Amino acid sequence: MQVWKQYQDENKDRFLDELLQMLRIPSVSARSEHKQDMLACADMVKQRLQEAGAGKVEIFATPGHPVIYAEKITDAAKPTVLVYGHYDVQPPDPLELWHSGPFEPVIKDGKIYARGACDDKGQFYMHVKAFETMVKTGTLPVNIKFIIEGEEEIGSSHLGDFIKAHKDLLKADVILISDTAMLSMDNPSIDVGVRGLSYIEVEVTGPNRDLHSGVYGGAVANPITILAQMIASLHDENNHITIPGFYDAVAEASQAERAEMAKAPYSEAEYKEDLGVKSLWGESGYSTNERTGIRPTLELNGIWGGYTGEGAKTVLPSKAYAKISCRLVPNQKHEVITALVIEHLEKIAPPGVSIKVTPHHGGDPYVTPVDSTEYKAAAKAIEASFGKPPIPVRGGGSIPITALFESVLGCKTVFLGFGLDSDNLHSPNEKFNLFNFYKGIETIPYFHQYYAEMKQ
Amino acid sequence: MQVWKQYQDENKDRFLDELLQMLRIPSVSARSEHKQDMLACADMVKQRLQEAGAGKVEIFATPGHPVIYAEKITDAAKPTVLVYGHYDVQPPDPLELWHSGPFEPVIKDGKIYARGACDDKGQFYMHVKAFETMVKTGTLPVNIKFIIEGEEEIGSSHLGDFIKAHKDLLKADVILISDTAMLSMDNPSIDVGVRGLSYIEVEVTGPNRDLHSGVYGGAVANPITILAQMIASLHDENNHITIPGFYDAVAEASQAERAEMAKAPYSEAEYKEDLGVKSLWGESGYSTNERTGIRPTLELNGIWGGYTGEGAKTVLPSKAYAKISCRLVPNQKHEVITALVIEHLEKIAPPGVSIKVTPHHGGDPYVTPVDSTEYKAAAKAIEASFGKPPIPVRGGGSIPITALFESVLGCKTVFLGFGLDSDNLHSPNEKFNLFNFYKGIETIPYFHQYYAEMKQ
Repeated sequence: MQVWKQYQDENKDRFLDELLQMLRIPSVSARSEHKQDMLACADMVKQRLQEAGAGKVEIFATPGHPVIYAEKITDAAKPTVLVYGHYDVQPPDPLELWHSGPFEPVIKDGKIYARGACDDKGQFYMHVKAFETMVKTGTLPVNIKFIIEGEEEIGSSHLGDFIKAHKDLLKADVILISDTAMLSMDNPSIDVGVRGLSYIEVEVTGPNRDLHSGVYGGAVANPITILAQMIASLHDENNHITIPGFYDAVAEASQAERAEMAKAPYSEAEYKEDLGVKSLWGESGYSTNERTGIRPTLELNGIWGGYTGEGAKTVLPSKAYAKISCRLVPNQKHEVITALVIEHLEKIAPPGVSIKVTPHHGGDPYVTPVDSTEYKAAAKAIEASFGKPPIPVRGGGSIPITALFESVLGCKTVFLGFGLDSDNLHSPNEKFNLFNFYKGIETIPYFHQYYAEMKQ
Repeated sequence: MQVWKQYQDENKDRFLDELLQMLRIPSVSARSEHKQDMLACADMVKQRLQEAGAGKVEIFATPGHPVIYAEKITDAAKPTVLVYGHYDVQPPDPLELWHSGPFEPVIKDGKIYARGACDDKGQFYMHVKAFETMVKTGTLPVNIKFIIEGEEEIGSSHLGDFIKAHKDLLKADVILISDTAMLSMDNPSIDVGVRGLSYIEVEVTGPNRDLHSGVYGGAVANPITILAQMIASLHDENNHITIPGFYDAVAEASQAERAEMAKAPYSEAEYKEDLGVKSLWGESGYSTNERTGIRPTLELNGIWGGYTGEGAKTVLPSKAYAKISCRLVPNQKHEVITALVIEHLEKIAPPGVSIKVTPHHGGDPYVTPVDSTEYKAAAKAIEASFGKPPIPVRGGGSIPITALFESVLGCKTVFLGFGLDSDNLHSPNEKFNLFNFYKGIETIPYFHQYYAEMKQ
């Protein structure tokens, strides 16, 4: 271990500089104007994997943004670890709320501020540097493969086909992903699940043109009012989702499992203070951790319609829109939920309007069994590095491709995340603590070592 | 009469050219970037009133956009008519729906297409040209005053103070306004009422920053969801407004009055076809004409929050906003209704969010008595020009300053409108039929003649 630590100490400034260079590339997958930035970022990832010691590195074109594949095969008898990450980032809006430019990384109070600092450039880059450490110190105990994609933030639209088409190339014993968070550095944890996702956009059309709200108001269905009524009806007074069949496939957590979850450190007062809210909100009968971990949700991600500029305009608009996403838990299937949501919205739309629902993307939930070798190796790595065993928690976010990895490649995924919930993922002022970045690089080689030992 | 008609026939091309020049000025009062355009338009109005024959014309500065005053006093013994109009226009958005530029007027199929063609440049300009006709042919039977303002579309914010400060200057026997519509050219009508207006904007704040909808979704109140629930609760299942006290002051129309209104020509099939809707919407127990004429309404004019761009972003936003306006009928007071709406929204906001409500502007409803001299003179003018008596109707729109005119100047207002409901006021492709423009110029001198005779 000493040899890793020494190498990492000697190279830590360079590791950080390299990450900052990558954070300067605005690789926003959702926006077509960033197509060139996506290519530039993919090139940089390729070059860094080569420098780190990969024997083979290749950029694969897809109908969307490219995928980078890399490998170092040392011995066919050793187990193979496939590291997955993504070099694309969320759009940085709203820009006016950032304290510094989203693509001009700043180090302040021991934190790296930039879009992608944690999600996921900072996190997948820990693997590149841990890999370099093991290669340069001659301590790599496994075969290692990397698949770094550019479409995670837009639903990994083309990765499924890529995986199916390159089943043999990607063959591995375990998939390792750092794209989640820990409870805190004092309470290290491992996410043993990610929720699935079903994302749709709804367009409500009332009259065929914008109307004067005085001349027509009161006599014609206003698409904003109707959309609001439709949205309001999606939760009942207990904040249960009202879509018929929505909960049918949900695997209810056992009392034992819920009792175990309740042991995770949680202060409602601190949670509320951090978010600046006087009161929490959620499904009756479940705790905050359960609401974000083991229960499915339906959230409004965006809404717009009519006049949204300065001052007043007395318009009765022709159209109103909303973006709605559901987080799913075992054993919900995203295709099923998307179909149920669409069917329900179409059913509840009153006759005065017409609606069009467009599915954006989706993915199924995934759970890592805590009694698996994969989880045990990760837990042992955390304990070696942090000095205490990790708490297993069910994460609220989604990594849409995980369920597909298992079904196509037939291997388990381990989420070895080093972010924090307070890292402002998808929000202004995203950050990643320097401590966490370096702690990740330090911890990852332990995983490879213990996993290799356990698989012998 | 022959002498007017001949003068108007000889000058009709110039009348139209002058209007088109004015329509080319983007005098959008709501947008600060159009401040210079507002001044340029005020200058043009001043010049045209001078050329038409006003003895005195003056531009008065206000804390907002300027007011143009003009007069021609022929004989203190004669009655004085005060013509009111406005040179400001609504914002032209959404621009992509216009078939030609909103400020590049186009004549097509006998219609002038431009922002302000009908509301209100085309309509107040009929008065300028009718005035010119009477002056140049030596037939002006009254003293005439003009007050043309630049803030009607933003609530006439400074006109009230202006009227109070210039009570003597504005002294008149009747106020004449062309800023409303007729049922059709075959069914000439006079609006005998305009609705009042109460316009507010609401901001709902949930968490203190945008959040990842996976990490926090399900545990924190989503301001879009909450705003939708609040909006949905403002109408009950009969589309009655649920705000306590909202209807308290409403003067219910008598059965006789409603029976009279029901005689106005109306085809539900044509109404629906024109708007492209399969079904109408509105308060139970009232007809379409009643819903837009004698009943108060609450309409959503705009809504926004969260991610509204291309693709998908899994954000749980910090804020959501809506613009809401109520149309009011006698004897509702806009200050009272605004206070009720604000109080109600604050009351129904659940504890997980905070809300801020900003009043935009308002005005009280106004009704012209059909047995008044003022109405009778207008009805006689329509009959002389159209060959049939007008149908009195209650208009759905608002001219916020009308109620104040009566309370400060102590005289009645007559709405002599020549627009059509299909003129796309406040919408893309606003238009004004050339026939209506010329018919207005032809009709207006009759009003002055009959009014002078009746007041003798």
